[in-house]
Amino acid sequence: MSLIVQKYGGTSVGTIERIQAVADRIAKNYRSGHQLVVAVSAMSGDTNRLIDLAGQIDQNPSSREMDVLVSTGEQVTIALLCMALNKIGIEARSYTGGQVRILTDNAHGKARIREIDGHRIQQDLDDGRVVVVAGFQGIDDQGNITTLGRGGSDTTAVALAAALKADECQIYTDVDGVYTTDPRVVANARKLDKITFEEMLEMASQGSKVLQIRSVEFAGKYNVPLRVMSSFAEGSGTLISLEENEQMEKPVVSGIAFNRDEAKLTIRGIPDQPGVAFKVLGAVSDANIEIDVIVQNVAKDNSASITFTVHRNDLPAAEKLLRQIAADLGAQEVDANADIAKISIVGVGMRSHAGVAAKMFEVLANEGINIQLITTSEIKITVVVEERYLELAVRSLHSGFNLDTSDS
Amino acid sequence: MSLIVQKYGGTSVGTIERIQAVADRIAKNYRSGHQLVVAVSAMSGDTNRLIDLAGQIDQNPSSREMDVLVSTGEQVTIALLCMALNKIGIEARSYTGGQVRILTDNAHGKARIREIDGHRIQQDLDDGRVVVVAGFQGIDDQGNITTLGRGGSDTTAVALAAALKADECQIYTDVDGVYTTDPRVVANARKLDKITFEEMLEMASQGSKVLQIRSVEFAGKYNVPLRVMSSFAEGSGTLISLEENEQMEKPVVSGIAFNRDEAKLTIRGIPDQPGVAFKVLGAVSDANIEIDVIVQNVAKDNSASITFTVHRNDLPAAEKLLRQIAADLGAQEVDANADIAKISIVGVGMRSHAGVAAKMFEVLANEGINIQLITTSEIKITVVVEERYLELAVRSLHSGFNLDTSDS
Repeated sequence: MSLIVQKYGGTSVGTIERIQAVADRIAKNYRSGHQLVVAVSAMSGDTNRLIDLAGQIDQNPSSREMDVLVSTGEQVTIALLCMALNKIGIEARSYTGGQVRILTDNAHGKARIREIDGHRIQQDLDDGRVVVVAGFQGIDDQGNITTLGRGGSDTTAVALAAALKADECQIYTDVDGVYTTDPRVVANARKLDKITFEEMLEMASQGSKVLQIRSVEFAGKYNVPLRVMSSFAEGSGTLISLEENEQMEKPVVSGIAFNRDEAKLTIRGIPDQPGVAFKVLGAVSDANIEIDVIVQNVAKDNSASITFTVHRNDLPAAEKLLRQIAADLGAQEVDANADIAKISIVGVGMRSHAGVAAKMFEVLANEGINIQLITTSEIKITVVVEERYLELAVRSLHSGFNLDTSDS
Repeated sequence: MSLIVQKYGGTSVGTIERIQAVADRIAKNYRSGHQLVVAVSAMSGDTNRLIDLAGQIDQNPSSREMDVLVSTGEQVTIALLCMALNKIGIEARSYTGGQVRILTDNAHGKARIREIDGHRIQQDLDDGRVVVVAGFQGIDDQGNITTLGRGGSDTTAVALAAALKADECQIYTDVDGVYTTDPRVVANARKLDKITFEEMLEMASQGSKVLQIRSVEFAGKYNVPLRVMSSFAEGSGTLISLEENEQMEKPVVSGIAFNRDEAKLTIRGIPDQPGVAFKVLGAVSDANIEIDVIVQNVAKDNSASITFTVHRNDLPAAEKLLRQIAADLGAQEVDANADIAKISIVGVGMRSHAGVAAKMFEVLANEGINIQLITTSEIKITVVVEERYLELAVRSLHSGFNLDTSDS
């Protein structure tokens, strides 16, 4: 008998029929002998309906009251799912975040889980019940309702699995697993059976939207095996765990992530002196603009140049700020470019394989794609290229690193 | 500075615009120096929407889960009302029943309040905040969400007022007060400025729908002055309190209540022996049929006859049962009649005035209305008449006891 925590997202519980289908799936798992704790999101559309009501009153409402409001969405789902389970003969009991006592900090709308009291849930499991918990929400130490922010239901599930020492945490979603890259860009992208936490984190942070980064971090930290599965199809999904792929011949690269949400800024000809990077990037960061890739170089004339990327929406503000900074520092020029794309190859296999970067650059060179920026980490190499080359670059790398379906 | 508890029902908070209007009214009260605690219902229609969702899954869902589901309705309202208050510069904080700690028994769907912890609310009031509480809900001692049943928001308000020792509990509704009788029947019915708890209870139990009986009982028990007011119009409403009307010339009758929801049953010619009433009425009550008025008499031949009223919907079942009982007891006949109406005159003034009953019967006799049944209590006289005489009887009594507007 295993203890499994399952999480069903808003689309999976979006209608009464789908809630009933989820109940059937849970019943099947329960009847095959597992103990089950289920975390659910609000029915798709419900959270937006509530946010819209608030927006009619105040475009910038109190975050405390916003959490009181939107947390009702999951509360509706837990009650309906328990009713559907009861209806097919499964004893089930629902709990809000506050009732479980999912204790968070008091950062309304983006709270972080501090502690979960698994005692009451364990009692229900021991009594043979399925336990259904509202995802995405908790309470702070003053008893105020908090929410973890969008996507927080994944984190709820992982945190529950960690607190209850569950054997596996299954995230049900509308895709059937993690792919080597986005199948909409590369038709023969391949579903991965296994991937490590580290790889999943790098994939997620580079734009793969399958799982929330926080939930993967959490799962990695507490070593909770995480499985991404489809609510709508059968199949064993993708298992995300500590272990590397056991195959004899480990693949060097596990997947390719990309995004086109960023823009690039360069400030050139800054008189090189200690603290230049801080003066430039500190000011940008103080303006609440998040910076992603950063590259600094020193030119022949000893002047420095710094290039970094920001979210495309922040480009106008960042450019304006950078021109001020350039004037203050006596820099030569500022350059802004929104037509870029970021591509990363990710794989724990890189650690033990030399020449992966060289191979990546070779593949891109063969297609005549110019690389504007390069950064590397232990299990990831990221390049920035002109946006129009994105699809070509991803497809070439996918086959260049033997990720196509035909090779598996 | 007074501490006032206000309650706004579903119609009063039925749209965003109405919630904003309620916020304006609260702001006005707050700015004139009062401390305010506000209990609210779900937006009208929302509870039915939730019940309908449950009904799509199970016509007879778990009452525990039903409470988890429907309690979200008030939670939405408290958040929106706080946002509307904040928007116009009033600091406000919302609490669910569980957060206040409105402790109830565990009778899901019809729970009774055991205890309210006013500590947290008092802290907010001391800090200058308006406190908004979800009506209709609480938690049991296991932390399960409970609801008080429909109309329970009135009870929440009164219980809060009692726990906080409020100066007044104001129930905002869609009528502007308690009337001497239903203005739809008597055009010159008069709004009462004051009425006692006892009178209000008798009026409510006789069919006046302005307030839930439980909330009036509660207010009387804890001596919480209760004021019924309109959400949509100005005015001071009707104050319900312990004190009798201070006018020199107290009115003998304060109001006239009536209903036509009942039917009358008579069993005649029962051989009179001890326990006859129990045999007849005990059996009816065992069948879960509620009995209202009961009259027993003994005829010349020493046989007994018993007449009682039940809800009109229960008439077929009650009649069938009564015919069985009649056969068992050897009674002569059973008579069933649905075309009746019940009319009550209510007033604490009756205590000190003789001849009120005689006056009532005289008024009805003058109109040629035959009285089928009579029962009396200390502050109420009830008659049952043919249904077609209802309006005529109420109008005649209204002017007979000087209740018409022109007399005030």
